[in-house]
Amino acid sequence: MNRIKMKKQEDYKKRYIGVFDSGLGGLTVLEHLYKLMPDENYIYLGDNARVPYGTKSADTIKLYSKQAVEFLKKFPLKFIVIACNTASAIALESVQKVAGDIPVIGMIRPASEAAISISGNKKVGIIATDATIRSGAYKKELLGFNQDIKLREKACPLFVPLVESGFVEHKATELIIEEYLCEMRTVDVLIFACTHYPFLKKQIQSYLGGVQIIDSGENAANKVLKNLKNSNNLSNDKGSEIILFTTDYPNNFIDTAKNFLSFDIGIVEKIRID
Amino acid sequence: MNRIKMKKQEDYKKRYIGVFDSGLGGLTVLEHLYKLMPDENYIYLGDNARVPYGTKSADTIKLYSKQAVEFLKKFPLKFIVIACNTASAIALESVQKVAGDIPVIGMIRPASEAAISISGNKKVGIIATDATIRSGAYKKELLGFNQDIKLREKACPLFVPLVESGFVEHKATELIIEEYLCEMRTVDVLIFACTHYPFLKKQIQSYLGGVQIIDSGENAANKVLKNLKNSNNLSNDKGSEIILFTTDYPNNFIDTAKNFLSFDIGIVEKIRID
Repeated sequence: MNRIKMKKQEDYKKRYIGVFDSGLGGLTVLEHLYKLMPDENYIYLGDNARVPYGTKSADTIKLYSKQAVEFLKKFPLKFIVIACNTASAIALESVQKVAGDIPVIGMIRPASEAAISISGNKKVGIIATDATIRSGAYKKELLGFNQDIKLREKACPLFVPLVESGFVEHKATELIIEEYLCEMRTVDVLIFACTHYPFLKKQIQSYLGGVQIIDSGENAANKVLKNLKNSNNLSNDKGSEIILFTTDYPNNFIDTAKNFLSFDIGIVEKIRID
Repeated sequence: MNRIKMKKQEDYKKRYIGVFDSGLGGLTVLEHLYKLMPDENYIYLGDNARVPYGTKSADTIKLYSKQAVEFLKKFPLKFIVIACNTASAIALESVQKVAGDIPVIGMIRPASEAAISISGNKKVGIIATDATIRSGAYKKELLGFNQDIKLREKACPLFVPLVESGFVEHKATELIIEEYLCEMRTVDVLIFACTHYPFLKKQIQSYLGGVQIIDSGENAANKVLKNLKNSNNLSNDKGSEIILFTTDYPNNFIDTAKNFLSFDIGIVEKIRID
C-alpha cells in the first residue's frame, strides 16, 4: 500500500498547498483551488477513518486537526487550508500553533467577508454541522464585522448523510430541507458553512427562492490566491502535482473523488495519523 | 476528568461483562442485558470519537474493535459482548484473538438463530449498515443453518442519522423507510442488524405490516444469560455496578443514555483508546 515514498524535507523540489478535511467534502475546496491555481501543487488529507467531525466534541476535533496538520507538515508547505468548516470553527488556533510559520486559512473568515459584502438587508443565515453552530465561530466573526447584522443559525446534521447516501434528488430530502430551512425564508444571504452542502444547492435554492448562497470553499480559494499573489509565492512552473491521502478506504475514496473533481486523480494512499 | 481509579486486575472484587459499541446504539443491548441479569456488573465502552463504524473499511473496523477490547481487558471480565453489528460482522475473530480465554459474543449468531427458528416461509430480510451488508456475515451464518432459506439484504445508512437527529416521527423518515424497505414486503422475518434500528420499530412495523422483527441485541442478551447459567458463572451478589466509558463527549452521552436506559447511570468517563 505504501506507494508514495516520503522524502526528507530538503529533497522536495516543490512546495505544496496542504489541504485537509474530515473526509471527502473538502475535495470541493480542492476543486476550487485547482480551478483558480492549476499550476500549484497540492497535498490533500481526508480523515475518513474518523469522519464526521461535526458531531464530536471540541477537544476531539482539536486533537484530530492537529494530527492532520502534523502529517501535512511532512511535506514542504507554502499554505495550509482547513477545508472543513467544523475544524475551522473549532481548531483554527490549534492548527496555527502546529503550523508555525506556514500561513493557515480556515473556511470561516472568507465566507463571512463575502456574506457581509453582498448582504443587502443585513439578514444572514448560516447552515452548518452541530459542532460548527455550537462553536459560535461564524456569529463571532460576522458580528465582529458588523454588530447590526441579523443572524439566523441552523444545524443541519442530516444534510451530509443525505448527500453521502445519494438522496440528493429525493422527496425526503425536500421535506428535510423544509424542516431545517423554514426559518431561513427571510434571510437574503445564506452561508453554506459545510463543504458538503454545495451538492444540495439546487434543492435549497429552489426552496428558498432568491436567496444568495455563499460557498465557503469558493471564497477560501479566492483568498488563498490573493494571499499567494501578494506574498509573491505563486508557482512559476506549469502543471500541478496533486497527492491525495486518506486515513481510510481508498477505493470508495477514489470513486467519490472522481465525481467531485475535474482533474485526474492518481495515487490515493491510506495512512494512519492517530 | 479521570474519576475512575483503575486497579490492578487482582484487586477487583467483581468480574464484569464487558460491552462495547461504536457509540450509543449498544446501550440498547446493555439495557437488554441489565433487564435479564440485574445482578451482573457491566463495563460499557462507546467509541463515540470515531463513530460510525458502518461506513468504514474492514481494516479500520478491526483495528478499532481490537483497541476497544484491549481497553475492556483492563478489568476482570467474565464475558465480552460486541454490541455493534458492524464490529460483530467484521471483527469477531480479531476480537476473539485479543480476548484470549474470555468468551465473546457478537450480534450475528443469536439473531440468525432466532430468525431461523421463527421463519415460516423461509424468507428472511436483513437490514444493516453498509459495512455489515458488505461483509456478508449474516448471509454466511443463515445459509450455514439452512441452505434453502431465501434472503433479502438492504443497507440502510440513513436510519442511524435519522434516529440520532430526532427524525423518528417525521414524514421524511416514512419516505426513506419506503425507499429502503419496499423490497422487504414479502419477507416474513426481518432482522434489525443494527442496534439503532429498534428506535424505528413502530414506523417499520407499520410499513411492513405483519412481519416479525428480530432485535439482535435482545437475542444476544438471552444467549449471554444461557451461557453464564450453563457455565455456572452468574453472579451470586445482589445489585449491579455499571461503569460507562466513552472516547468522546460525556455530556451528550449522558443525556442520550438517560433516554435509553431504565437504570440510573453514574459516572461516565472519557478515555482514549487509539
